[in-house]
Amino acid sequence: MKIRLYNARILTMEEEKNIFFGEIRILNEKIVYVGDGSDADKICKEKGMTEITWDEEIDCEGNLLMPGFKNAHTHSGMTLLRSYADDLPLNDWLNTQVFPVEAKMTKEDIYELTKLAILEYLTSGITAIFDMYLTPETIADACDHMGMRCVQVGAVNNFSQSPELVEEMYLKLNNKSPLQSYILGFHAEYTCSKELLEKIAALSKKYQAPVFTHICETEGEVAGCMERYGMTPIAFLNSLGMFEYGGGGYHCVHVTDEEIAIMKEKGLYVVSNPASNAKLASGIAPIGKYLKAGIPVALGTDGPASNNCLDMFREMFLVTALAKLKEQDASAVDATEVLKMATVNGALAMGLKDADVLAEGKLADLIMIDLNQPNMQPVNNIVKNIVYSGSKQNVKMTMIHGKILYNDGKFLTKDKPETIYRKANDIINKYR
Amino acid sequence: MKIRLYNARILTMEEEKNIFFGEIRILNEKIVYVGDGSDADKICKEKGMTEITWDEEIDCEGNLLMPGFKNAHTHSGMTLLRSYADDLPLNDWLNTQVFPVEAKMTKEDIYELTKLAILEYLTSGITAIFDMYLTPETIADACDHMGMRCVQVGAVNNFSQSPELVEEMYLKLNNKSPLQSYILGFHAEYTCSKELLEKIAALSKKYQAPVFTHICETEGEVAGCMERYGMTPIAFLNSLGMFEYGGGGYHCVHVTDEEIAIMKEKGLYVVSNPASNAKLASGIAPIGKYLKAGIPVALGTDGPASNNCLDMFREMFLVTALAKLKEQDASAVDATEVLKMATVNGALAMGLKDADVLAEGKLADLIMIDLNQPNMQPVNNIVKNIVYSGSKQNVKMTMIHGKILYNDGKFLTKDKPETIYRKANDIINKYR
Repeated sequence: MKIRLYNARILTMEEEKNIFFGEIRILNEKIVYVGDGSDADKICKEKGMTEITWDEEIDCEGNLLMPGFKNAHTHSGMTLLRSYADDLPLNDWLNTQVFPVEAKMTKEDIYELTKLAILEYLTSGITAIFDMYLTPETIADACDHMGMRCVQVGAVNNFSQSPELVEEMYLKLNNKSPLQSYILGFHAEYTCSKELLEKIAALSKKYQAPVFTHICETEGEVAGCMERYGMTPIAFLNSLGMFEYGGGGYHCVHVTDEEIAIMKEKGLYVVSNPASNAKLASGIAPIGKYLKAGIPVALGTDGPASNNCLDMFREMFLVTALAKLKEQDASAVDATEVLKMATVNGALAMGLKDADVLAEGKLADLIMIDLNQPNMQPVNNIVKNIVYSGSKQNVKMTMIHGKILYNDGKFLTKDKPETIYRKANDIINKYR
Repeated sequence: MKIRLYNARILTMEEEKNIFFGEIRILNEKIVYVGDGSDADKICKEKGMTEITWDEEIDCEGNLLMPGFKNAHTHSGMTLLRSYADDLPLNDWLNTQVFPVEAKMTKEDIYELTKLAILEYLTSGITAIFDMYLTPETIADACDHMGMRCVQVGAVNNFSQSPELVEEMYLKLNNKSPLQSYILGFHAEYTCSKELLEKIAALSKKYQAPVFTHICETEGEVAGCMERYGMTPIAFLNSLGMFEYGGGGYHCVHVTDEEIAIMKEKGLYVVSNPASNAKLASGIAPIGKYLKAGIPVALGTDGPASNNCLDMFREMFLVTALAKLKEQDASAVDATEVLKMATVNGALAMGLKDADVLAEGKLADLIMIDLNQPNMQPVNNIVKNIVYSGSKQNVKMTMIHGKILYNDGKFLTKDKPETIYRKANDIINKYR
């Protein structure tokens, strides 16, 4: 497939962040040209595209092309539990509402429910997800079927999965398809025995690979770890050799300065989930401190049971709005920094080095932002408009791996949305 | 015009909040029938609609009809300054960025910029606004031209407008058109002399009318009032007899228990603006306290220069998410309460007694929420889905005063959006 996107504003998210007018050319899954268009034919010919005929030529009408958003923490299969139970503290919510239903869910359920989440990701311009859930193989199948790029992470805890399964999935899903990959991980310190954690640390050493996990989400979790091990969670996990090859933590709301120093030293990523942390009353992460320490911050929606939507625009507004509140400083965490979190930092945290920016040779994972909407006018500052005023309504097109999967409100996925909605409702009706 | 909306889910927002399947019938600007449809013809005939022929019959395909959102605090003309300056504390932002540009704006500018805001209100299902800005007559003209219901409030301060103008507008705009009305008010205690405030209190007494104003938005404002008068703002204004006929305050972030008691005694409304208060680092309003005291809370976006969007879905999520954080209680401020703030309470605060709920004889100010979107699935709980997962993308139709003004992403307003966008950009280019 050869696709030409012309008459566009372009924000590459490379170091030089200026927005310019131009075009992007795509050959199969990769970008072959990004620029003002004047040298496009020449460069394409140099790359062997001697005959330039397009399968699709799209007039972007001055709208903005930019890298797709990376949702760096989610549990897609939890679409089942969206608005099923709300307004409860994290522990009650998990123990009385979430776990009992999850215990009954089948692989087939999760396959279908993941597809529902993918539809929503597409509406929010999300081109890759960092997913932690129960049945890695069916999740990968669902993502391949729908065309979604997915990095899964080990979800093992004392009650489900095993270090052996994590290793098996690490080897299997990293060789499954160009859209799928897998990173070592575990659910959380508070749901894993020390022996289990040591086995994951050993896997990290064996494969020289990073490890991700839920960490420092609530005050209760930190207090529990202190009681169990006399150390804060990040310090404790670090003492097991968990982060010798990097990795990172989801949430990172309640951390000490000592832990921040460890994160910096080990090159860890913070994946912040501001909507979930607010809705579950967990707290506000110290984003300003992370930025000052030079720790890269990425953004995730967390699962749809706790958020309850899968919307990077919500996370982008919240991560800066909550930082401004926490620091009592309206200048905290500016819009450019936020857009970097939602794109480049997410990609790097997820090991997607070829999906971070728009440039020649990079993967064609990109979105078109509709600037011809009232919330994007007047055009004082496009980056600020996106971060402070943007919403799903502005996502005009979502392309993953060179394929347009969502365009002008229509899904171009294999399954029709009506079918996916019906199946999701059938599943919840089974468990009510 | 006779319009029939059938095959709909309906949420009337009356005391009984169940959602049922049925239809709504509209004759000119009013609802003549809401129900399951079985008795619709009979009731219409009793109301003199002997011949039932429809100008429009709309199959709602199971989507939800509900009262339109009431944006109970905004400054529409500030669309000019969206993303013009951000990341500054309130005082700096007002004095160095906002006021200098506002000083140059003409009536004609504000007329055009208000139209831009109206387009955005329609995309967010907002059917009425409580607007405070510089040129009341041109704002009313713009709203009439676009079909927007608008309640304006006096914006007088030491630098612009006058109590005489407030009285003139009170008499004029309350008799201008069925879409326009006007409520007594002033900008804020900290921008008005005591003499000026006494004149507004006298107008309130003369017309036995409520008064609204910005109040207790920042800690600095409260400290200033204490220094000037030895009283907190609400106590001080109350001592002038400002609230003998009710009214309310925009923001109400920093209040004492004594002030809450005054608000309860005087029947005041709180209009909360959570996005603006977060983005300007002003703080989190004590919503839980207001609800416990029985003080009705409405929601507003504030102006697009400080938010930066005009989106009630953002405000709905934030008012509960921030309350959960402030009270460290995930059960604080539930979804049903939030939806009431965004509809019924807003209407009552604005004096729109006929636009609060969907019922026979009420104004046809209503919206259709698209449930056939991934973020509204599965259908565990529609109210929670709207409050916790909803976004502008779910607004399928917006009707004001019996007229459909926005449908399936298209504006049915008199002016084309492209014309309005072009004029807004022309205006900002003039002042750069």
